[in-house]
Amino acid sequence: MLETIINITLTAGKILSEGYFTPIKVDFKNTIDLVTEYDKKIERYLIDELKKNFPDKKIVSEEYNTDASYDDRGSFFIDPIDGTTNFVHRFPFCAVSVGYISKNTRCGVVYNPILDELFFAETGKGAFCNQTEIRVSSESELINTLIATGFPYSIVNTDKRFLMEMLGAVLKNSRGIRRAGSASLDLCYVAKGVFGGYYESSLKPWDVAAGVVILEEAGGKVSGRFGEVFDLWSDFIVATNGHIHNKLLRVLNG
Amino acid sequence: MLETIINITLTAGKILSEGYFTPIKVDFKNTIDLVTEYDKKIERYLIDELKKNFPDKKIVSEEYNTDASYDDRGSFFIDPIDGTTNFVHRFPFCAVSVGYISKNTRCGVVYNPILDELFFAETGKGAFCNQTEIRVSSESELINTLIATGFPYSIVNTDKRFLMEMLGAVLKNSRGIRRAGSASLDLCYVAKGVFGGYYESSLKPWDVAAGVVILEEAGGKVSGRFGEVFDLWSDFIVATNGHIHNKLLRVLNG
Repeated sequence: MLETIINITLTAGKILSEGYFTPIKVDFKNTIDLVTEYDKKIERYLIDELKKNFPDKKIVSEEYNTDASYDDRGSFFIDPIDGTTNFVHRFPFCAVSVGYISKNTRCGVVYNPILDELFFAETGKGAFCNQTEIRVSSESELINTLIATGFPYSIVNTDKRFLMEMLGAVLKNSRGIRRAGSASLDLCYVAKGVFGGYYESSLKPWDVAAGVVILEEAGGKVSGRFGEVFDLWSDFIVATNGHIHNKLLRVLNG
Repeated sequence: MLETIINITLTAGKILSEGYFTPIKVDFKNTIDLVTEYDKKIERYLIDELKKNFPDKKIVSEEYNTDASYDDRGSFFIDPIDGTTNFVHRFPFCAVSVGYISKNTRCGVVYNPILDELFFAETGKGAFCNQTEIRVSSESELINTLIATGFPYSIVNTDKRFLMEMLGAVLKNSRGIRRAGSASLDLCYVAKGVFGGYYESSLKPWDVAAGVVILEEAGGKVSGRFGEVFDLWSDFIVATNGHIHNKLLRVLNG
């Protein structure tokens, strides 16, 4: 199953890459159309191929079917372009993300065709970037790690002020913040040992389904904001190498 | 002159790349040694080659000679690894940066060997990324642009709280923030039209000398925090596509 998902994702990535390198004049209006065009093009391809290869599975996606409720048959969670804003502005962090979750197994495939990095994992079989098995970093001091994060559009509302306080606290207690703009790649970079941890609020199941499988298979840990069990419907994700998890939770909730 | 600087910088980039892809176990202690080793190795190479090719010019660099005072003969400003933290953690934004400034001309060369992006410019001759001439974006609405920034280590001190307020204001008035961790590449990405603007405090002349030449040759604008003329000793840099410059200044100082 994993091999089929990888092949489908690689081809979807080629469509993304084609859009990224098409020399268009990026202005606001064209940009919107472009995103819609490539988002839809990649989504259509993914859905067609997944249906053909796995006709009995549910497919959950931003445009196609946002009903992410549990399904006994197993479900795919797809994000045709994770990091759409980066795609539009040509910042090289965008990826096709395909996760699969069932009672018996989970698969995650994230492909950034711009940097040609293919991340994949299946329950119990380890996590890989291209040909190489990856592991989280072994660092246990938060102050020695880079922490990735993202900001929801709603950060400026009063009830999101806590995110600015969190940011200040993390800046004080880590080696620095990185904000690259793609949730799935942030999770993969924790899996690869680049970042020690990652946190963000207001994400959707298709943003994180694949990345969480990859991170856990690489030895990482994922929870909600207060350390509770993470599920795909959680409003807040904290994902780390495991060793700094409790320290990061303390800083975030200090 | 530019061609010689480009060749020297490309070879220096190969040394950086060699360090980046050497599979070492990154822990705090080794990391420090590694950085020192590669920082020094690249700096030694740059200084040797620049002295050989331009024996009468002054060379300013973090380790070698931090006296950045004006020199009639013309000065090189070099940063062997801009984005050292990224280099250590294998986040692919790090670059060799070489700027040259004299009464008659200025040159800037920034090379990221990981993504194989070579940016270069010379006064009056335009700016380039690899073989392609680059221009800033034509976007004039701040809300439609991505803004890059960096955080100084001292951000948590009381007198730096204004930086958190600036960040909140920029998040509210732009399409988003990116924090990639290399000042020279942030400037080059404004020059290339990826980011609409970039701001940061507490930088040193060798962090920005090359990037500023590249940005200005690509049609961008650079100033201090309040719009005053920027010089390499300024404590704060605001760099944009020109069209959003005043809007960004207003948001930063609101």
